[in-house]
Amino acid sequence: MLKKLHHVGIVVRHIEAAYAFYRDTLGLSVHKQDILPDQGVKAALLTIGASEIELLEPIAAHTGVARFLERRGEGLHHLCFETDDVVRELDAAQGKGLAVIDRQPRPGLAGMICFLHPKASHGVLIEYAQP
Amino acid sequence: MLKKLHHVGIVVRHIEAAYAFYRDTLGLSVHKQDILPDQGVKAALLTIGASEIELLEPIAAHTGVARFLERRGEGLHHLCFETDDVVRELDAAQGKGLAVIDRQPRPGLAGMICFLHPKASHGVLIEYAQP
Repeated sequence: MLKKLHHVGIVVRHIEAAYAFYRDTLGLSVHKQDILPDQGVKAALLTIGASEIELLEPIAAHTGVARFLERRGEGLHHLCFETDDVVRELDAAQGKGLAVIDRQPRPGLAGMICFLHPKASHGVLIEYAQP
Repeated sequence: MLKKLHHVGIVVRHIEAAYAFYRDTLGLSVHKQDILPDQGVKAALLTIGASEIELLEPIAAHTGVARFLERRGEGLHHLCFETDDVVRELDAAQGKGLAVIDRQPRPGLAGMICFLHPKASHGVLIEYAQP
């Protein structure tokens, strides 16, 4: 069962520039910033209620986030739902024949995670996370 | 001060078709469905933790949501933050010279609402709502 909206991922060109809006205008606090070399991104997590805004800046070419930025520009990238059992969620999705990006969960910034394919979910890239 | 992520708006072609994923696969409950004639949309709200997913289906041509669907296809459309003072948030944004869509709050599905322009916020359409 899904417990909450864990975070909303937003692709930006430069995280430091995006702080002017997300941190300084919205007033959200940055509680983590990290480089994820295997995904080719710099990421920052900002707290909003029980959820987070995840800012994603590509730091390598030819990654998913870099291609997104090139093709669509800055903007909303994905939704992540928190679950207490990421294996079960993924099995259920695959059991329904939904397209997935990850065939099994893997470690990510939010815990054990996996992504469904946007064509499974009306154009929205969906992540499940078990913190 | 922003209290939480009130909802995430997702544009879909047909709400009934999108229920197969958002209601039946994710297991989210639909707690409201409504027609908003002045915005030319049918909207459904699904509960996820303390937040909501808002599905938006255009029911009239030449509206913002219809144009979005034509241009970008189904997908993530906007983020709505809950505030206890929508007038103050909007004044603060305009005071910083940020581009806005609404120069003053107006009644919406989530209470008194207003939208900033996506160019104010790195390509993300941002809504403030005071329920």
